[in-house]
Amino acid sequence: VADKVAHFKQDVWSIFTPLAAQLNAVNLGQGFMNFPPPDFVRKAAIDAINTDDCNQYAHPKGRLRLLKALAKSYSPLFNRTLDPETEVVVTAGANEALYATFAGFLDDGDEVILMEPFFDQYIANITMNGGVPVYVPLRPHGDTSKIMSSSDWKLDINELRSKITPRTKIIVLNTPHNPVGKVFSKEELLEIGQLVQEFNLLLISDEVYDRLYFKPDVHERIANLPGLWEHTITIGSGGKTFGTTGWRVGWSIGPKDLIKTVLSAQTRIVFCVNSPLQEAIAISLEEAEAHNYYENHITSYEQRREKMCKALSDAGLPHTIPQGAYYVLANIKGIKIPEDYEYPEALNSRPRDFKVCYWLAKEIGVVAIPPSEFYCEENRHLGEDYARFAFCKTDETLEAAAKALLKLK
Amino acid sequence: VADKVAHFKQDVWSIFTPLAAQLNAVNLGQGFMNFPPPDFVRKAAIDAINTDDCNQYAHPKGRLRLLKALAKSYSPLFNRTLDPETEVVVTAGANEALYATFAGFLDDGDEVILMEPFFDQYIANITMNGGVPVYVPLRPHGDTSKIMSSSDWKLDINELRSKITPRTKIIVLNTPHNPVGKVFSKEELLEIGQLVQEFNLLLISDEVYDRLYFKPDVHERIANLPGLWEHTITIGSGGKTFGTTGWRVGWSIGPKDLIKTVLSAQTRIVFCVNSPLQEAIAISLEEAEAHNYYENHITSYEQRREKMCKALSDAGLPHTIPQGAYYVLANIKGIKIPEDYEYPEALNSRPRDFKVCYWLAKEIGVVAIPPSEFYCEENRHLGEDYARFAFCKTDETLEAAAKALLKLK
Ligand SMILES: CSCCC(=O)C(=O)O
Ligand SMILES: CSCCC(=O)C(=O)O
Repeated sequence: VADKVAHFKQDVWSIFTPLAAQLNAVNLGQGFMNFPPPDFVRKAAIDAINTDDCNQYAHPKGRLRLLKALAKSYSPLFNRTLDPETEVVVTAGANEALYATFAGFLDDGDEVILMEPFFDQYIANITMNGGVPVYVPLRPHGDTSKIMSSSDWKLDINELRSKITPRTKIIVLNTPHNPVGKVFSKEELLEIGQLVQEFNLLLISDEVYDRLYFKPDVHERIANLPGLWEHTITIGSGGKTFGTTGWRVGWSIGPKDLIKTVLSAQTRIVFCVNSPLQEAIAISLEEAEAHNYYENHITSYEQRREKMCKALSDAGLPHTIPQGAYYVLANIKGIKIPEDYEYPEALNSRPRDFKVCYWLAKEIGVVAIPPSEFYCEENRHLGEDYARFAFCKTDETLEAAAKALLKLK
Repeated sequence: VADKVAHFKQDVWSIFTPLAAQLNAVNLGQGFMNFPPPDFVRKAAIDAINTDDCNQYAHPKGRLRLLKALAKSYSPLFNRTLDPETEVVVTAGANEALYATFAGFLDDGDEVILMEPFFDQYIANITMNGGVPVYVPLRPHGDTSKIMSSSDWKLDINELRSKITPRTKIIVLNTPHNPVGKVFSKEELLEIGQLVQEFNLLLISDEVYDRLYFKPDVHERIANLPGLWEHTITIGSGGKTFGTTGWRVGWSIGPKDLIKTVLSAQTRIVFCVNSPLQEAIAISLEEAEAHNYYENHITSYEQRREKMCKALSDAGLPHTIPQGAYYVLANIKGIKIPEDYEYPEALNSRPRDFKVCYWLAKEIGVVAIPPSEFYCEENRHLGEDYARFAFCKTDETLEAAAKALLKLK
């Protein structure tokens, strides 16, 4: 086994998703929808399957129809006319977009700055490609035993600056943020952007939840700020946009020199992305506005957010109200578990939030994700007091969770 | 740009597939079907899209239904009862299976022995993961200006042995072989297998064309030879099996320790494989025999092979008759092109077969692939006298190619 892989522990998704099934618990763990995609999206997939050339290899950069649909939908956001053939590349999900980007840009020892908490896959995506992750935490400002806003989780820009070294190559931004739900303000983006320009860095902006900025937040695309286009690769996700996380269609958008490198790496990693679901996402993008999809999408997720937050409040769990995405961080410090409670062997060496999440699954019947997994070893304790609840679920599921969580009172 | 990516030249597929479209030439280049998948396969995909949980993340190891269908269909070939949950992993196409395997096992400087000619992606898959490819050619024995059998292309086992060093970690076998069409005989497999055991190596057996062993060839699975199971990862492809190269569903099969490592790497590369097309391949595997699919598949490809070989003969091109897969290597030494013929700039520095393939596309109207791309730099000349024609095409296409190729007379 290669050194770069040998040290991996079992990933948190492969622990908690099967656990939910096994315990028949309400699953608010992994961020996937337990309801079908909209009819027009599903129909698009069926039409694609019935289109002959949609069942064969795509060009490694993506099917032209999807490249064009993406260029069209992102051009207004970036205030520029994107060239579908050179400024967009379709990837095998947003995760592979990240992997291919790190593969394309990192030489051994290059440093990548991540904000904690972070989507856990970042680490392996970086280290497998020879990179060295460097960490700077988002810190909650205020009374964490009360309800907070995700805007209270703040980056200390001087702390970020202090982490930049001559080996720093990339900063990863994630907005809306998983798991905090934070939407970075224009001021925050300008500060980060200034460092990117000052040190001539590459910025990877993971914006997979970009169709879920809750009202009335105003938001900016960092690639759209003065001077930042040339430095930025923006990553998006068909699965998050259309409720089809299993389709594995993502994308990267940026200036052509950067996109060329992502494409060069990805051609060698997966060769190309599945054709029928690319076509389906293309059709879905073309038709979304006619179905008023994005508006309805936000409205329905606002309702889910409200249900989720109320359920946590009713159960006495302080939490962070997200400005975007579909997760809520709850403060689990107050949850008391008997000293002699028995956990599965594998969890004994894990931080407290793993144990609480196990206990919640087993005794309360609700699965959440332990966010200490989203911190580096050294900072794990910063995540130990929280559990992440995903609300991309049906009303019935959210109501069942609310009911179960009342047992905490 | 990372060193490991910066040196990549444009891949041969992104040159010749668009060229075919641009010139409106008969495309016998890249190995994809220009006919639809069978109805039962297409229907399986539509049923999957209509199944709610098929649109969300799969487990990184694959959907259980597909794991079970694969275990069931491979168990008899390997004379053992495969455990679907630990001895099989579903990958994002066979290409990503290769990438993830190299990622999982290679440390910097580890050597991987490849037989030339090889599927070009192997090189990048190895070097991006720190490995060093080492080459041993298959050599045609006999008069290459006459029609040969792919069994005339032989591996010198002592040459292979001489390439093994203390850094050798992996040998890659490809049978049926792309582009030669060779099916390694049991004797050849035993010889290779003996070295694998003697030096305690890992064997990657790329068997993506394993539903296309032409009659009356008998063949063996190397993983099934005495003592080799523990050393072997066998790679297969849903796209090649069911005529759906664009679905990106492949797999690796082997002992659980090896599969665990592939899974660990792949979880970090793509996280998981698209769910609906996994389900569709599962259903297709379940139903294939009831539709007499494999039998019909071989028969139809035998007919295509015959058409292809006759077309080349009629055009005066000596060639190698394949025992498996869907490619024919034609000897293009006799093709004379005017000295002052003008090629696109990008082809000037490429070997003769690139130029002949360009000329064939432009002047004759048939696209083939230049196989010098399937040799290391030093051995490129061994591929220069050939062009690879893919016959996974409709009768009309093969007939149009036959007609066009007559212009060579
Ligand atoms: C690899 S799990 C997919 C990511 C996600 O949706 C989550 O954070 O739950
Ligand atoms: C990367 S192209 C797909 C492989 C193949 O089918 C070929 O060799 O043509």
